[in-house]
Amino acid sequence: MKRRILGIDPGSRITGFGVIDVIGNQRHYVASGAIRTPPGATLAERIKVLVHGIHQVIDTYQPTESALEQVFVNVNPAATLMLGQARGACMTALVLRDLPVAEYTALQVKQSVVGQGKAPKEQVQYMVVRMLDLSGTPQADAADALAVALTHANHSGGAIGKLALQGLKVRGGRLV
Amino acid sequence: MKRRILGIDPGSRITGFGVIDVIGNQRHYVASGAIRTPPGATLAERIKVLVHGIHQVIDTYQPTESALEQVFVNVNPAATLMLGQARGACMTALVLRDLPVAEYTALQVKQSVVGQGKAPKEQVQYMVVRMLDLSGTPQADAADALAVALTHANHSGGAIGKLALQGLKVRGGRLV
Repeated sequence: MKRRILGIDPGSRITGFGVIDVIGNQRHYVASGAIRTPPGATLAERIKVLVHGIHQVIDTYQPTESALEQVFVNVNPAATLMLGQARGACMTALVLRDLPVAEYTALQVKQSVVGQGKAPKEQVQYMVVRMLDLSGTPQADAADALAVALTHANHSGGAIGKLALQGLKVRGGRLV
Repeated sequence: MKRRILGIDPGSRITGFGVIDVIGNQRHYVASGAIRTPPGATLAERIKVLVHGIHQVIDTYQPTESALEQVFVNVNPAATLMLGQARGACMTALVLRDLPVAEYTALQVKQSVVGQGKAPKEQVQYMVVRMLDLSGTPQADAADALAVALTHANHSGGAIGKLALQGLKVRGGRLV
């Protein structure tokens, strides 16, 4: 049975997305990209662009599960609030399409993809290109989203992943 | 022409809502309440409850416009992120139903409802009861949401409000 994972790297200006197929131990690249929100627009307008963008990706590629990156808690409260709002909108877009959503921190993504949590961003991107056998390097936000999808593929390949294949849903690392 | 305003006071645990009708200078209470998210649940589950709750309110009361309170930027980054996520989910729920969304800070709400920005919460609730001629005091979160709706009714009764009645939408205090 093929699993198709949608990874999302939320941002208040640019949100990356990446879609991969998982067949046994193999991972195949399907699509990736970034949704940019108009900078001068109101929050309502920016969220509309973001949510419609994610829904377009879901409708086009029909993922069976999703993984959302836990965002960095910034020291600037206004920036943290903006990022939180964007992440809340992404989560809403995913749950409204009834997709199971797993969540991973940047540390978990780096550990899973590179093997150590303090790896620089470039090394994550390099590993994404290698693991998915890409001919070019995707844009930074798209690469981060692919890394989140790969992390979910790695994390859910064990016991939980096997139960998930039997139709049970995994959310936040827990079976529901 | 009757305007029906949905006010929302977003919170990571409890989100208040309040619906009022505006006919000329009169404001009439329609409904209010609070959406509670299950405390032990994952973010996905909590956001699902929140968004379905808001959509149920919209489908039941059919508001013509909405107003969302600008949340307090907390000193605790994790709490700010959580609040941002809830607010982003509320905004998504509103824009997905194509409602125009205005935004007001707590200061603007207090100034509009009580007449001064440093008014205590209890005074806001007292004025909500008086302005809407309520027989009892609504729950704190519901009262706050009604106060946001009243603020929008007051702010949009002038030149912008008149243009809004002609079919132009007001978002974040700007015509779009």
